Amino acid sequence: MAVNKVKGTYDVLPSESYLWQALENQIREVLGQYNFKEIRTPIMEYSEVFHRHTELSDMVTKETYDFDDRGDRKLTLRPEGTAGVIRSYVENKLYTSQELEKVYYIGPNFRYERPQKGRYRQFYQFGVEAIGTVDSALDAEMIILAYDFMKRLGLKGVRVKINSLGDEESRQNYRKALEDHFQPHVHELCSDCQQRITKNPLRILDCKVDQKHKAVKEAPTPQDYLNEVSRAYFQKVLQHLNAAKISYEIAHKLVRGLDYYSHTVFEIEADIEGFGAQNALGGGGRYQKLVSELGGPDLGGIGFACGMERLLLALEAENVAFAKESELDAYVIVFSEDLKVVATKILYELRVSGVKADMNYTQKSFKAQLKQALKMNSKYLIILGDDEYQKGVVGIKNTKTEKQEEVVISKIKKYMTEKLEKK
Amino acid sequence: MAVNKVKGTYDVLPSESYLWQALENQIREVLGQYNFKEIRTPIMEYSEVFHRHTELSDMVTKETYDFDDRGDRKLTLRPEGTAGVIRSYVENKLYTSQELEKVYYIGPNFRYERPQKGRYRQFYQFGVEAIGTVDSALDAEMIILAYDFMKRLGLKGVRVKINSLGDEESRQNYRKALEDHFQPHVHELCSDCQQRITKNPLRILDCKVDQKHKAVKEAPTPQDYLNEVSRAYFQKVLQHLNAAKISYEIAHKLVRGLDYYSHTVFEIEADIEGFGAQNALGGGGRYQKLVSELGGPDLGGIGFACGMERLLLALEAENVAFAKESELDAYVIVFSEDLKVVATKILYELRVSGVKADMNYTQKSFKAQLKQALKMNSKYLIILGDDEYQKGVVGIKNTKTEKQEEVVISKIKKYMTEKLEKK
Repeated sequence: MAVNKVKGTYDVLPSESYLWQALENQIREVLGQYNFKEIRTPIMEYSEVFHRHTELSDMVTKETYDFDDRGDRKLTLRPEGTAGVIRSYVENKLYTSQELEKVYYIGPNFRYERPQKGRYRQFYQFGVEAIGTVDSALDAEMIILAYDFMKRLGLKGVRVKINSLGDEESRQNYRKALEDHFQPHVHELCSDCQQRITKNPLRILDCKVDQKHKAVKEAPTPQDYLNEVSRAYFQKVLQHLNAAKISYEIAHKLVRGLDYYSHTVFEIEADIEGFGAQNALGGGGRYQKLVSELGGPDLGGIGFACGMERLLLALEAENVAFAKESELDAYVIVFSEDLKVVATKILYELRVSGVKADMNYTQKSFKAQLKQALKMNSKYLIILGDDEYQKGVVGIKNTKTEKQEEVVISKIKKYMTEKLEKK
Repeated sequence: MAVNKVKGTYDVLPSESYLWQALENQIREVLGQYNFKEIRTPIMEYSEVFHRHTELSDMVTKETYDFDDRGDRKLTLRPEGTAGVIRSYVENKLYTSQELEKVYYIGPNFRYERPQKGRYRQFYQFGVEAIGTVDSALDAEMIILAYDFMKRLGLKGVRVKINSLGDEESRQNYRKALEDHFQPHVHELCSDCQQRITKNPLRILDCKVDQKHKAVKEAPTPQDYLNEVSRAYFQKVLQHLNAAKISYEIAHKLVRGLDYYSHTVFEIEADIEGFGAQNALGGGGRYQKLVSELGGPDLGGIGFACGMERLLLALEAENVAFAKESELDAYVIVFSEDLKVVATKILYELRVSGVKADMNYTQKSFKAQLKQALKMNSKYLIILGDDEYQKGVVGIKNTKTEKQEEVVISKIKKYMTEKLEKK
């Protein structure tokens, strides 16, 4: 019985996993330089971690994988990374050890969406969260980090789009203005947006159905409703970006649908061939209520997240190459089955010394083994013949220079580690 | 509302994630030297991938997380790593590109078990699979790999336990012998084992309830039922281990409950204080039917898996230390809020050059910032005062030597990268 992978999921095959490894290494390296540490939270959480509000986003109401465990607990596979991190921050009282906790995560999330290119039902994100303090320098750090990361990957035309929703007072005023603005058009909007007008009118601005409606295009922007404190905070963020010479665009219409943002919101875009209008590679913003909603103190944070499948597609489109896995150092070829025992010993000694080595685990001819060794692009061939074995030697051939030398079996390890400069 | 993590799951906090990173790096390094490549399969699979048989193990019938998705598909969170890898091997026809596919996986699995120390409902395993050929040298490679990996981690008293169940004929004969052996005692065994007698009597030998029953202790062992081919194959595996000077113990009673093993089965143990009788750290064996059961050709494979939580506990018990994350290279301290903009610029320049640097994202006094810098164990302090800024300089202090130098702001990057020998 042939079984396929679940619809909307994908396999990373052995030939392409080095791309994921390289991307993850790059994430860990850059985020480490910004002094973020990794946090790992479970893939399944109690549903309340995500289903917090009466006003839920589509992602949470229609797209989560919810199920009961064998003890009738309501669980959800995480649809995004932030809520679980905040749950962990609160449950483990991380705020007691440091005023500011700087963490990152890398891992799979799950959403029941219509699968399309670069969008899967099990998909990977990495993200960072800096939780505990409110400081315009920190908002700038987050944006610079996102920008720097994309640039260092080798993407061209990396752009920062930034906006401010202001503090609670500013947001409420803006929300009221949006409500007033949309009310005359209520019956022209989609059924979801008709609900949103009173529940969360900000989300109308991101609605895919209504995006071409005149009222959406002419909607007021948050900038006009920022109070003095919020305006000053945003100016300070921009000063930091100016000092670091990061170019940015103030995107007045950027609100990022999620309910929980306040003050700074941002997205990172790159000029990528064939990525069309949707060229945002990541985004984030400051939040003030998430920590307290999950039972913690009234502490703010700021975060950023980036989808990894899309990022790999972008790198592919831009012809950015990651270093492949290192080639095979040595391949042992035997002239007869009995000599495989000797090959096992040689391989063990080499591998323990850090040499990447292999042999042919079939009962194939010398020629077939040689073919396999060359297919694997091994730097050296170690050739073990019956007559040579009687004399206690092997032939070692450098596949690049084609030069072959005779080496005493007990000296193979020394010979190879010197040639390869290992240890 | 405070929400806890799901019962039986755990968080890896920022203070301890370096342990997981180091373990994973070690896995990738050693397995790379043995020429295995990583494969990544989804966490959710169609339930048939695991629920294949009429004779199901307890793990599959009682412990899996099964649920329907929003399209009424029957899905299961993977309870182990092998079946998904084989599903992927078959679906992607990996057997057409190479005779032998050598892959490894690292990731979370899910079983609804009673949580206890080192045993969780979401738990991590790494494992290797070599699929496509039957060769005694390959069985030996797998065992040597497992042994070598544990040794290199720094575990003491690493032991190999090995046994053979033989080929299909041998297994059937042995199975018949067990059935005959247990039949007279059927009513003395637990209700599960009463079923097992006809379904899969091998599993009685691993039963936790009946393990002290006389009939279990006196049960026949597979060795007595190996046919000539199977006996020769096993002898050959042992010859390879002898050649590599790997010491092992032939464990006549080792059968490893799963249905699908044939020929070689093995476990790796280590002498660990306080780990008691259950000191197996990993195990595996050869399988012949898995690939065809999942719709592929009649190809055999051999695999090995290891639980990572238990491995980390073992390393902790043995006081094996992994290298911590690198310390902070530089911490910028400002005398006034306005100077933070300058700090942002300095930090960006340093981080882009590979320097791990940070500042204090609060509005705290100089003294509080200094305290934080020392808590973070930064190698250098970059001190930015108002008067110094007017002169275009900063003070850079080496926290070890306590020596402080005055450095022109535009030369900070050069000064620090030279001191730290970056790039």
